[in-house]
Amino acid sequence: MSIHEYIKKYVDEDFDITEELPVPVREGKFPKGSILTEYGEIERRAFFLRKGIVEISVSNGEKESIMDFIFPDFFFASYTSFLTGEPSDRRLECLTDCTADVMMKEDILKAYQHSLLINKLGRCVSESLYMRRSLREKEFLIADAEQRYAKLVLSRPELIDAVPLYKIANYLGIHPESLSRIRRKIAS
Amino acid sequence: MSIHEYIKKYVDEDFDITEELPVPVREGKFPKGSILTEYGEIERRAFFLRKGIVEISVSNGEKESIMDFIFPDFFFASYTSFLTGEPSDRRLECLTDCTADVMMKEDILKAYQHSLLINKLGRCVSESLYMRRSLREKEFLIADAEQRYAKLVLSRPELIDAVPLYKIANYLGIHPESLSRIRRKIAS
Repeated sequence: MSIHEYIKKYVDEDFDITEELPVPVREGKFPKGSILTEYGEIERRAFFLRKGIVEISVSNGEKESIMDFIFPDFFFASYTSFLTGEPSDRRLECLTDCTADVMMKEDILKAYQHSLLINKLGRCVSESLYMRRSLREKEFLIADAEQRYAKLVLSRPELIDAVPLYKIANYLGIHPESLSRIRRKIAS
Repeated sequence: MSIHEYIKKYVDEDFDITEELPVPVREGKFPKGSILTEYGEIERRAFFLRKGIVEISVSNGEKESIMDFIFPDFFFASYTSFLTGEPSDRRLECLTDCTADVMMKEDILKAYQHSLLINKLGRCVSESLYMRRSLREKEFLIADAEQRYAKLVLSRPELIDAVPLYKIANYLGIHPESLSRIRRKIAS
């Protein structure tokens, strides 16, 4: 999906997909292992993933935890840093070779001043990022690890093949051994 | 703070606060204990809190957990239900007598079609709700209960006087006895 198709599908069904966007977009190719945004860096870009998987980790300097795996057709960034201008408490890393559309924050902020379309897009993206974080918080509060794993497998079966198990365990907030136990239990 | 003042401060500094909003707003007064949105209800309103404290809980039918306490000058709703039209998995309850500005979802959606201002407002509110959820998720992942409590006291000292300790313990995801222990440790 292109950003144009995303807008037509999720933001404004009347959008003409041959129209030029009021924000310049360039394509970026990032080999596996690339760090898109490092801890401490100030986020100056927003990405729309076209191909690959990106991991978002958070750290307090001592403990590191995986917050999210990003799949194609999703907007992402170290978004709190993008919004506040403060150094990123997250790291964005390509788990596979990735292709992404890249927009610069300064171009987006300029467009936010006058463009109805880009404000609609920014609103819809923020709404969907809110729902994603809110759902995960809820699951941590009221679902156990087995339920969280089952949900993950149902919603993102490709994750299990693409991402090492110790990373999935970290994402679920459990020990790798606990994940192995859960997987055996579900398989039997 | 009024919605007009909020817009001028956080959304658009050029906003003329004598201007009429493109969305009708009515004031609501809700006595202590009122349920603004119940589990299973479809959220049709957005609120801007003028006075009081609102508690947002989440439940899976078995376990209930407090996700947030809302203080004045904040927009809130059962926001995922508001966005998706699905039944709310949250309950919004007034912990004190509350006054809130209330906007209807249908009026907001209409304004989203054409109003630059209301899209900017919706974007800014969604961004701030995203950051709030994202910060709390991060704290659950990488901070312990004592650090989370210390942060809460620093950022919202009035919470400690206004909300019973068992609710604060629930919000922090710990037993009330653990919270008492943490409080004694910090006090000594």
